Amino acid sequence: MKLFPALEWVRTYSRLDLSSDLLAAVIVTIMLIPQSLAYALLAGLPAEMGLYASILPLIAYALLGSSRTLSVGPVAVVSLMTASAVGKIATEGSVGYGTAAIAMALLSGMMLLGMGIARFGFLANFLSHPVVSGFITASGIIIAISQLRHILGVAAEGDNLLTLVSSLWLHLPALNTLTLITGIAATVFLLWVRSGLSPLLQRLGMPQFAASLVAKAGPVFVIVATIAASVLLDYEARGVALVGEVPRGLPTFALPDFGLEIWSELAVSALLISIIGFVESVSVGKTLAAKRRQRIEPNQELVALGAANIASAISGGFPVTGGFSRSVVNFDAGARTQAASIYAAIGIAIAALALTPVLYFLPKATLAATIIVAVTSLIDVAILRRAWHYSRSDFTAVAITITATLLLGVELGVLSGILASIGLHLHKSTQPHMAVVGGVPGTEHFRNVERLDVVTQPGIISIRIDESLYFANASYLETCIYNFVAQRPELKHVILMCPAVNTIDLSALEVLEAINHRLAEQGITLNLSEVKGIVMDGLRRSDFLQQLSGKVFLTQHQAVQALKPDEIEPYII
Amino acid sequence: MKLFPALEWVRTYSRLDLSSDLLAAVIVTIMLIPQSLAYALLAGLPAEMGLYASILPLIAYALLGSSRTLSVGPVAVVSLMTASAVGKIATEGSVGYGTAAIAMALLSGMMLLGMGIARFGFLANFLSHPVVSGFITASGIIIAISQLRHILGVAAEGDNLLTLVSSLWLHLPALNTLTLITGIAATVFLLWVRSGLSPLLQRLGMPQFAASLVAKAGPVFVIVATIAASVLLDYEARGVALVGEVPRGLPTFALPDFGLEIWSELAVSALLISIIGFVESVSVGKTLAAKRRQRIEPNQELVALGAANIASAISGGFPVTGGFSRSVVNFDAGARTQAASIYAAIGIAIAALALTPVLYFLPKATLAATIIVAVTSLIDVAILRRAWHYSRSDFTAVAITITATLLLGVELGVLSGILASIGLHLHKSTQPHMAVVGGVPGTEHFRNVERLDVVTQPGIISIRIDESLYFANASYLETCIYNFVAQRPELKHVILMCPAVNTIDLSALEVLEAINHRLAEQGITLNLSEVKGIVMDGLRRSDFLQQLSGKVFLTQHQAVQALKPDEIEPYII
Repeated sequence: MKLFPALEWVRTYSRLDLSSDLLAAVIVTIMLIPQSLAYALLAGLPAEMGLYASILPLIAYALLGSSRTLSVGPVAVVSLMTASAVGKIATEGSVGYGTAAIAMALLSGMMLLGMGIARFGFLANFLSHPVVSGFITASGIIIAISQLRHILGVAAEGDNLLTLVSSLWLHLPALNTLTLITGIAATVFLLWVRSGLSPLLQRLGMPQFAASLVAKAGPVFVIVATIAASVLLDYEARGVALVGEVPRGLPTFALPDFGLEIWSELAVSALLISIIGFVESVSVGKTLAAKRRQRIEPNQELVALGAANIASAISGGFPVTGGFSRSVVNFDAGARTQAASIYAAIGIAIAALALTPVLYFLPKATLAATIIVAVTSLIDVAILRRAWHYSRSDFTAVAITITATLLLGVELGVLSGILASIGLHLHKSTQPHMAVVGGVPGTEHFRNVERLDVVTQPGIISIRIDESLYFANASYLETCIYNFVAQRPELKHVILMCPAVNTIDLSALEVLEAINHRLAEQGITLNLSEVKGIVMDGLRRSDFLQQLSGKVFLTQHQAVQALKPDEIEPYII
Repeated sequence: MKLFPALEWVRTYSRLDLSSDLLAAVIVTIMLIPQSLAYALLAGLPAEMGLYASILPLIAYALLGSSRTLSVGPVAVVSLMTASAVGKIATEGSVGYGTAAIAMALLSGMMLLGMGIARFGFLANFLSHPVVSGFITASGIIIAISQLRHILGVAAEGDNLLTLVSSLWLHLPALNTLTLITGIAATVFLLWVRSGLSPLLQRLGMPQFAASLVAKAGPVFVIVATIAASVLLDYEARGVALVGEVPRGLPTFALPDFGLEIWSELAVSALLISIIGFVESVSVGKTLAAKRRQRIEPNQELVALGAANIASAISGGFPVTGGFSRSVVNFDAGARTQAASIYAAIGIAIAALALTPVLYFLPKATLAATIIVAVTSLIDVAILRRAWHYSRSDFTAVAITITATLLLGVELGVLSGILASIGLHLHKSTQPHMAVVGGVPGTEHFRNVERLDVVTQPGIISIRIDESLYFANASYLETCIYNFVAQRPELKHVILMCPAVNTIDLSALEVLEAINHRLAEQGITLNLSEVKGIVMDGLRRSDFLQQLSGKVFLTQHQAVQALKPDEIEPYII
């Protein structure tokens, strides 16, 4: 882990790097302006906080992050989680709401930094891919539906599917037609831009690279067009909700006064936001790094994202993380180093100084359309099919995550997903697969008697245990072995084949002792084979090996050779 | 699972069964009277509730339980847990306190019954033996210290070591000398009875069996003696706390009015009491059943203990479970069927009718002495040494359980223990052991190159993965394999030897796909060997096998034979 990974590229920074990074920065800036405003809206915060969250955090990540091309800032899922958490302790639009969002960025930043320093990056491993996909899919659906209120021009609230839909339905009679027309037009145009603009420009003779970059700037056209419509048709007088007054200028570096109780109220939410943001960011970073044979250092990423969130908090922003779409744009536009992010931050700062007066007229419906179109790419229904096809327990984990997120909201949703996937994994290990095995003819290999045509010996049963033995499956093991033995009255030797037993804990050791004792009373020896070195080390520290009625064999083959009944001597006349 | 296991022995009940069971019942009754009173005191409840909890629950268990000799009633640890849970919502001595204890028995009974019907007995497996031993040891210490207040004759409160000791210290100046003398005398006598009475009686010519049974009745002597002292020396006037008025007669069958909110307040505590009570009871039942080659059916036990607790609630008792000491006495006294428990219940009922006036004079210090002497047998410090010696993670689980129980109280203690043991188990699987393996000369067996003298082939690395692959260790696997490969520039083939891989979940499958892809780019093939049938079934449902750059081999031996470089052709002149 290096303190400043940026030093690596600063030292060798070339003119070519500069020109590539500058081009990428211009394109990312154009894309980030509407995104920043939109995600501030999604989080229920004033528009300027979106801009503030896209300046200093980019610089902090640029200096500390291990990815060369990741672009940090407000992202959809984290903004939704912020709205959900902050909404529980303050009313949207109040001063307390903005303060709580800043506190959330600070707390989440400190948690990420702490986890990075303590090298707790491995915690993110407990979010399985199905859970993450399911969570992001469900969040995308909630985000899209939550933005319908801005498209319809009605007040509606809720942080899960049921409350959102019922609230929208109740407020539907108050819908504002002009807002609806603007919102639908913007949505349709943005959807067309995504698929139709680039081919059109190419047919008009633009090179493919330029055409696809121009297409990424689609949201900017919509913003310009709807601002124009808003001014010309006097949207304000016709009741269309506008972004309104956005303070001009750069953020001041200061933290608001937080009460002490806010920390405990936000702690769980901040932890969840930190972990989700980290996982999302690292998965984007890994994908991009793999394309250029670069590497991501997870614990360094924790430090960098922590610093970015703290930077966001002290400059009046809200929680940020590495975003997928902006990072891909940055990468595709040719960014070579994190200098591109620094230039983009300067671009946003200029926008905050120069463009804010114009934003007054921007309809919120336009931003909502941007968000809806952006989140459609988050929705990954294929994961359900893929998981169903591959394994029932992966499918169950996705299904629980999606259902819980839609019905209970983001926080309980992600928690349910994590607990369900851990629970399902543990449950599998409580009733381990055990196979009776026999020798594969012509080899020294032993396989399941039910799957392959194998050779077994009378008086011997070889049982392969397909799991580590620990407290949660020790009593199941006992029951199974007694059942196997009860079915075979002629039995002389039991061989437990242990290549899949990676640990035997104290509870399981006691059960093995009991099994050994009980089998011995019935005149049956208990033998082990293919016990791993690390497991043998443990057994040698106990007195189990002295008690054992049979032996421990290096290989299953040797065990069967040693224990099989002697050949019947030929009868000699 | 049978509805009434009692039918089995009722059908064949003989005169010999009757005489054996009657003798055992008399002895158990004599033992149960002081125990019932003492555990009511420990739970902070009036003495008669102890008697009530020892009548109907015994009959309910006798009809439904699968153990022939288990004796159900109030036990030390469950009484302490009741006191701890009920003390949080009501003041000791208030009507609400007794009502809450009854509600706890009812709720716990319904939970046990529900778990039994749903066949959730496996849940108890998540309590590892080290955690149970640690928890019971720490509970025994807390119980002993909590009873010191009755020996000292002071008011002291607390549900963990720190609060108890500091409260005792604060109240020490108010100590009552006569109470202290009575308490110490009773304790010393009981300790002597345990070890010294039986040998003395044998020297006086009593047969060993009778002598050891009389010794079990030690608490009764102490009760008779201290009641006599209390009357003769007028303890009441001298400020010694007495049991006082105990209502005469049998319990009425009625449930008090509970508020609705009491259920949610008690739910978590009731679940913990249910699980601890169940685990304790089943472990006693198993131990006794093994001695007579009988069997315990865990789900039937849940049903029977559930019914016993519901029976306790409707007859004005508090939570009960199968107790170790009373069951052992019942067994040793020769009980052959659960009829012995029914006779004992009748014995306690007679006591409730006849003896209660005398109990008025019984000093609480006597009961406290009974408890202290009883719980010393719960304290199992050897488990710490045994766990330390066998494995660090078992030791950590015991140490966390003991420390948390002593410092945070019983509920947080047992929860910490369960979470710690599951967490430690999961943590082990997140960084699985991986061994580079080679062939053991003269066999087809492959073992760790660092442990045995084995043969490896140039250009091939064989890595044995000692864990199932799932989301929590997928990224660790990726890092490890890349590191192995990076150290060996001449590599042509990677063989993952999978005898210990019991599952590959979707997250791990995706990582394997990524590894396969990346190795292929470097001109290295990825091969698998000894993949279990159940894992292959999963891989066949995905398109991994089509993508795989190498092959899947039945055995590691065949894999190496197929991939090893061809012999160099002899140069022919």
